[in-house]
Amino acid sequence: METDILIVGAGILGMSSAYYLKKRDPTLKVVLIDKLNGPAQGNSGKSEGAYRNLFTGEANYLLADSTIDWFHNFQEKMGYDIKLSQQGYIWLFSEEQYSRNKISIEVMTKRGAETQLYSGKEIKEYIPDLEIDFTENEESEILGLENIDIGVYGVKCGSLDADALVRAYEAEFLRLGGEIHYNTIATKLLHEPVEPLGIPDEPFVWQESRIAGVNTPKGRILAETTVVATGTWAAELFDPIGYDCFMRPKKRQLFAFKDHRLNRLLKVEGLNESNILPLIILPKAGIYLKGEKTEESIWLGCADELGRKFECEDNPQPEDEYYSNNIYHVLVQYLPCFDNVRPENAWAGQYDINSFDKTPVVEEGPGFIYIGASSGSGIMKCDALARIVEALYNEEEYANLYGNRKFKVSDISIKNRKIEKETLII
Amino acid sequence: METDILIVGAGILGMSSAYYLKKRDPTLKVVLIDKLNGPAQGNSGKSEGAYRNLFTGEANYLLADSTIDWFHNFQEKMGYDIKLSQQGYIWLFSEEQYSRNKISIEVMTKRGAETQLYSGKEIKEYIPDLEIDFTENEESEILGLENIDIGVYGVKCGSLDADALVRAYEAEFLRLGGEIHYNTIATKLLHEPVEPLGIPDEPFVWQESRIAGVNTPKGRILAETTVVATGTWAAELFDPIGYDCFMRPKKRQLFAFKDHRLNRLLKVEGLNESNILPLIILPKAGIYLKGEKTEESIWLGCADELGRKFECEDNPQPEDEYYSNNIYHVLVQYLPCFDNVRPENAWAGQYDINSFDKTPVVEEGPGFIYIGASSGSGIMKCDALARIVEALYNEEEYANLYGNRKFKVSDISIKNRKIEKETLII
Repeated sequence: METDILIVGAGILGMSSAYYLKKRDPTLKVVLIDKLNGPAQGNSGKSEGAYRNLFTGEANYLLADSTIDWFHNFQEKMGYDIKLSQQGYIWLFSEEQYSRNKISIEVMTKRGAETQLYSGKEIKEYIPDLEIDFTENEESEILGLENIDIGVYGVKCGSLDADALVRAYEAEFLRLGGEIHYNTIATKLLHEPVEPLGIPDEPFVWQESRIAGVNTPKGRILAETTVVATGTWAAELFDPIGYDCFMRPKKRQLFAFKDHRLNRLLKVEGLNESNILPLIILPKAGIYLKGEKTEESIWLGCADELGRKFECEDNPQPEDEYYSNNIYHVLVQYLPCFDNVRPENAWAGQYDINSFDKTPVVEEGPGFIYIGASSGSGIMKCDALARIVEALYNEEEYANLYGNRKFKVSDISIKNRKIEKETLII
Repeated sequence: METDILIVGAGILGMSSAYYLKKRDPTLKVVLIDKLNGPAQGNSGKSEGAYRNLFTGEANYLLADSTIDWFHNFQEKMGYDIKLSQQGYIWLFSEEQYSRNKISIEVMTKRGAETQLYSGKEIKEYIPDLEIDFTENEESEILGLENIDIGVYGVKCGSLDADALVRAYEAEFLRLGGEIHYNTIATKLLHEPVEPLGIPDEPFVWQESRIAGVNTPKGRILAETTVVATGTWAAELFDPIGYDCFMRPKKRQLFAFKDHRLNRLLKVEGLNESNILPLIILPKAGIYLKGEKTEESIWLGCADELGRKFECEDNPQPEDEYYSNNIYHVLVQYLPCFDNVRPENAWAGQYDINSFDKTPVVEEGPGFIYIGASSGSGIMKCDALARIVEALYNEEEYANLYGNRKFKVSDISIKNRKIEKETLII
């Protein structure tokens, strides 16, 4: 098969890129392939589906903030039910943590992120189940718990259905005449000479070379441009040609709870319009949880860093003991309502982490564009990133993000990267 | 075993770090281990042993320039015969290439790198075997050869014996009472809680944790600080704990020639004091070669980028066809004296490449220091990097490089990295 553009990966970044590339010039043949049997079957569909514009880096803020605006457009104007729920984020801090992060929070606010400050007591009024004071508590001391003195509430943050989001882009892409082949794995990037001489073992070191498409078990797909959007599987394609995709894969687990003992926690009144638990980030151990409106459940995750290996798995699994031996001990201190509550469901996805600046990468090489290293925020930055791919393909210096906001395309490349490091990391 | 400092890796970066750490405080117990049976048995000993201060980045320049000064001290004052030969580098350019790189070259010169410009004709007077004009040459056109219009000669550049260099540091380290255990592989970094509770499966996500040493087949080695200097094998230790070592391994091959047909090429008169072929970099295909004085041979390598896979091998092998099918066709055009000449010897080592800024990394994490990602220039920057390790261990803001030059330690970390990208890459 031959095509103008081949996109590899039907996750959020591949699908949104496919949409904007096709939309820009519907006369182009744009083909998307994925090894799995539908959209968002890799890590996108396993995402927590939380979004925020709380980023300290200018690029991260712009990518996320404009993408959130697009989410509203997608749901409210274009009519896709992506279960958008602007239920807020609350970042919980001890006094000491807050003062350490104060500058970062001020930077965010200056960028435009609307935040509200709450005292620990105010938060406890909204969320009575939350313990905020651990002075003179022996177990808490062993656990090294931090008091909750301050909560930073992000207004333009919330939750959506990641799967529905990918399907919405898919529907738009197909409506424009885009072509999708599921169950079609790209086994290899075709590294070929720009001017083939027909000699075996080309390209040689003295030949100009490019990525000319991919191999699949059903045959080669030749493309003028190959967009690699395979997320944590990017290294499987790029390592064999020696291109550094600047990410390492790491598993993250989610646990879902549906239990009458959590009803009061789930239904937080007055903080947001939906009267549901916002995404709250505990001040210890990277534990975060959010109310999931449509399912009336609570989803919980944990940002484990040192100690959690880098590994790319086709089917990552949640670990039972990870909740019960690890998270639970801290969780039940902050939220005693979890006492003896077990998750009803659990699953695992993977982050493609750029450890350097925790910001995604969009870069072109000969014959290809790489979009990835989304570091766990691919969903919430997807629309902006896909528009950057569109601009890059069309050789434009600036991408036009939703809401007519400009983003300098080369800033997010590896080669000419100009990205501030994120200083506030979950 | 317990020790104050454990260094993993008896390559150039491990051995030089061991020396400076022990030298700084000889009362500390400093133990170095390596999986192989002697110093420099991994990639260091397979290095080309070329050195240069021709770097455009400020950090790279300072690291290399001060290390070169140290080489002279090592050989001329301390009496180690590291076969130092200041025979120069010549970077060969076409007119067009030169004008594209002119700013980079000016930047280098401004930093202090002493360079001399030669015209193609002047170079041909020194190296009569070199073809410099390929106009109206059909085969050259197919090969896309560039004329040689300009040569940038770097004065403070040359060649040394990498193996002897590592052994020199080893001798000094041992003289100070350092301890080395060869044939001792670190199979695992010990990731442990700072305050162990004695519960299985520690550390938990809520525990502060650190690297407490390594496992070896002969037992655990506990260390206050573990210095990981395993080069291309760094990911094998760091990936399991989820720390990004910021490098990908890539094979590089060297071919050695000893043939009477190359005698005139080998003995270049007047360019340097040794009257030997400097390291010359051809304007095409990343091919470089140098005269090797002690062996009266010519060593040749090729900087293959796209197409050469990332992979870490225990015993990387040179590929016969890589010379004959790949390099040879270009080489014999520039240097017809290679006609039908076959390498007498060939070997392969590996680069630990930081694709982002082609500059090494020295960074600390809890309980450990990582030195690596040397991107093919570990030998020529070793002394400065080891002094940065010493400063980092001693919690100093600035390292004191040889010649009383200061280097801000945090600049070369990943976390607070302040490194200019290298713009002139071989």
